[in-house]
Amino acid sequence: MPAIRLSRSGIGALATALWCTATIAQEPITLKDLGSFHVGGRYVEISGKPVKDVVFTPGGVPAKVDPNGTYLTGQMYVQYFIPQNQRGTLPLLLWHGGNLTGVTYETTPDGREGWLNWFLRKGWPVYNSDAVERGRSGWSMFPDIFKSEPIFLTTGNGYERFRIGEGVGSFNQAPTKRRQLPGSQFPAEGYDAWVKQVVPRWTTTDPETIDAYIAEVDRVCPCVILFHSQAGQFGFKVAQARPEKVKALVAVEPAGIGDPAKAADLKGIPVLMIFGDYIEQDARWPAIRKNAVEFGDRIKAAGGAVDVIDLPKVGITGNSHLLMMDKNNLEVAAVIQNWFEAKGLYR
Amino acid sequence: MPAIRLSRSGIGALATALWCTATIAQEPITLKDLGSFHVGGRYVEISGKPVKDVVFTPGGVPAKVDPNGTYLTGQMYVQYFIPQNQRGTLPLLLWHGGNLTGVTYETTPDGREGWLNWFLRKGWPVYNSDAVERGRSGWSMFPDIFKSEPIFLTTGNGYERFRIGEGVGSFNQAPTKRRQLPGSQFPAEGYDAWVKQVVPRWTTTDPETIDAYIAEVDRVCPCVILFHSQAGQFGFKVAQARPEKVKALVAVEPAGIGDPAKAADLKGIPVLMIFGDYIEQDARWPAIRKNAVEFGDRIKAAGGAVDVIDLPKVGITGNSHLLMMDKNNLEVAAVIQNWFEAKGLYR
Repeated sequence: MPAIRLSRSGIGALATALWCTATIAQEPITLKDLGSFHVGGRYVEISGKPVKDVVFTPGGVPAKVDPNGTYLTGQMYVQYFIPQNQRGTLPLLLWHGGNLTGVTYETTPDGREGWLNWFLRKGWPVYNSDAVERGRSGWSMFPDIFKSEPIFLTTGNGYERFRIGEGVGSFNQAPTKRRQLPGSQFPAEGYDAWVKQVVPRWTTTDPETIDAYIAEVDRVCPCVILFHSQAGQFGFKVAQARPEKVKALVAVEPAGIGDPAKAADLKGIPVLMIFGDYIEQDARWPAIRKNAVEFGDRIKAAGGAVDVIDLPKVGITGNSHLLMMDKNNLEVAAVIQNWFEAKGLYR
Repeated sequence: MPAIRLSRSGIGALATALWCTATIAQEPITLKDLGSFHVGGRYVEISGKPVKDVVFTPGGVPAKVDPNGTYLTGQMYVQYFIPQNQRGTLPLLLWHGGNLTGVTYETTPDGREGWLNWFLRKGWPVYNSDAVERGRSGWSMFPDIFKSEPIFLTTGNGYERFRIGEGVGSFNQAPTKRRQLPGSQFPAEGYDAWVKQVVPRWTTTDPETIDAYIAEVDRVCPCVILFHSQAGQFGFKVAQARPEKVKALVAVEPAGIGDPAKAADLKGIPVLMIFGDYIEQDARWPAIRKNAVEFGDRIKAAGGAVDVIDLPKVGITGNSHLLMMDKNNLEVAAVIQNWFEAKGLYR
């Protein structure tokens, strides 16, 4: 955020000049509105548990906490940014992937602007949410309400699974022992900062999550939805539940799909699927990609319009699964923006 | 957010006219910058647990998840909004209370602007965070890393404890059976929406939380800090750890205090304590308030400047513990703004 930065060496001065140019070139973001709300949720009853005396703050006054009673579960947090000069014709909903939150689309782990700011600067009203059970949506006791235990990721887990590098496995190792994939665009210096964005997740809460996304669509749409990874199934299934309200779907490396038997329900919604690099050499991603593309083929067979962009085939290489955080993240965003424009969703 | 709203009756038309006036009167918010980051956190090792095959998405490809290894814990999420026209002389850090997140300061549960927008419109650079273990900060497995079980609140829990009303206890009842306190400023229609903001909390993570707030102060300050309820202890203790970096403290109904033995460390920092209504009649709040005021007296005895404002004594009545969400929330914000101005922290 400093407007001016000084350096002591020639190389530093050059880097500084470039950096300042990038900073100065940034126009302010003017917002008509900025805020948040929760959607969805349902009430559940819990009984038979003992009352506890809880001191909430050291030295504070004890309060009785009766865990029995009614709880809200399954609500979802949405934060919105409405630009003053609106050029996207519809609200743009951003849905993140597994073990993550809406932070996915904010500042990158190494401190650059993310897709949220970029699309906002382009004039899109942006609605960024935290899926049920994650982030500011909150979560519920298990196994009483959520039916399984949550999954926690080790610091190293995403390194190979998200096609950033190799040599880590599920264990952390010193950064020097990590081997990033050749030509990788993921900001190596931001990996541990990205791990700070990781939150626990469940694998048994998909129905609640879908209900909450439908509640968001019912409140905000007509709209376009951009979704990543785990949200592949959410984006396609919610669009199948509300096909009249969803005007475009951008599936960023979708790890799940909609109901294949209802693929025809999506025939009126233009779909873009976008994939990064290193897929063919990966143990799991060829199957994940194939699953998504075949789902797209079903939509096309029913008369729909599905575009699949493999970034390396259009000359954009080195992208991990976390495209929106890679060093060329804005180049990838521009590919999506061009598609929106081609579909007549931008003025 | 619709710019025009139609109604079918005269009363509706009047309400619409007032509503539109309020909307039109709002100037856009122009931001120099908008983003987020995580601070703090440390690495911990977990061993001896079995490897699991996990299907993350229905129909997806199974992945091995080894729960053993290194985890990050104790990191904290911060979202920042930097106004183009800066009039607050320092960044304003907003720290929320227990079982809640930074959503506390965003749009009120009944859809009005909260303190975040209000201070932003006044020209303060605002840094709004989710405490460790809450919201977008994520949380860690227990009892392996966090040493106790979390506490979940029933839908009715805050109703009496936060001095909104009575007649609910810890059980939910139909809204018609709730009795809001006479003259209460809390938006009755927003209570259940507020419950959606509630997240689980621990009572054993204070040290990690303090470490993370110190990390935020080290990154962002010099600054002023506004904190609520549980964050009473965090605000005062962090200021005691970094007295040279904190230029003012606003304790909004603090439920905890700093180290009394080190009260003198705060003598150079102006302090405002602000309390709402219905305290004397409450079972717990007279003791909570007394504890805070006595801590303030220690700071004053050491030569510090502490102002205590009981809102009813300055003619502002009906405030619950959730002052920043009450119907007169902006009137309360103006009291704080006036204090900042009197302390020379605004230009």
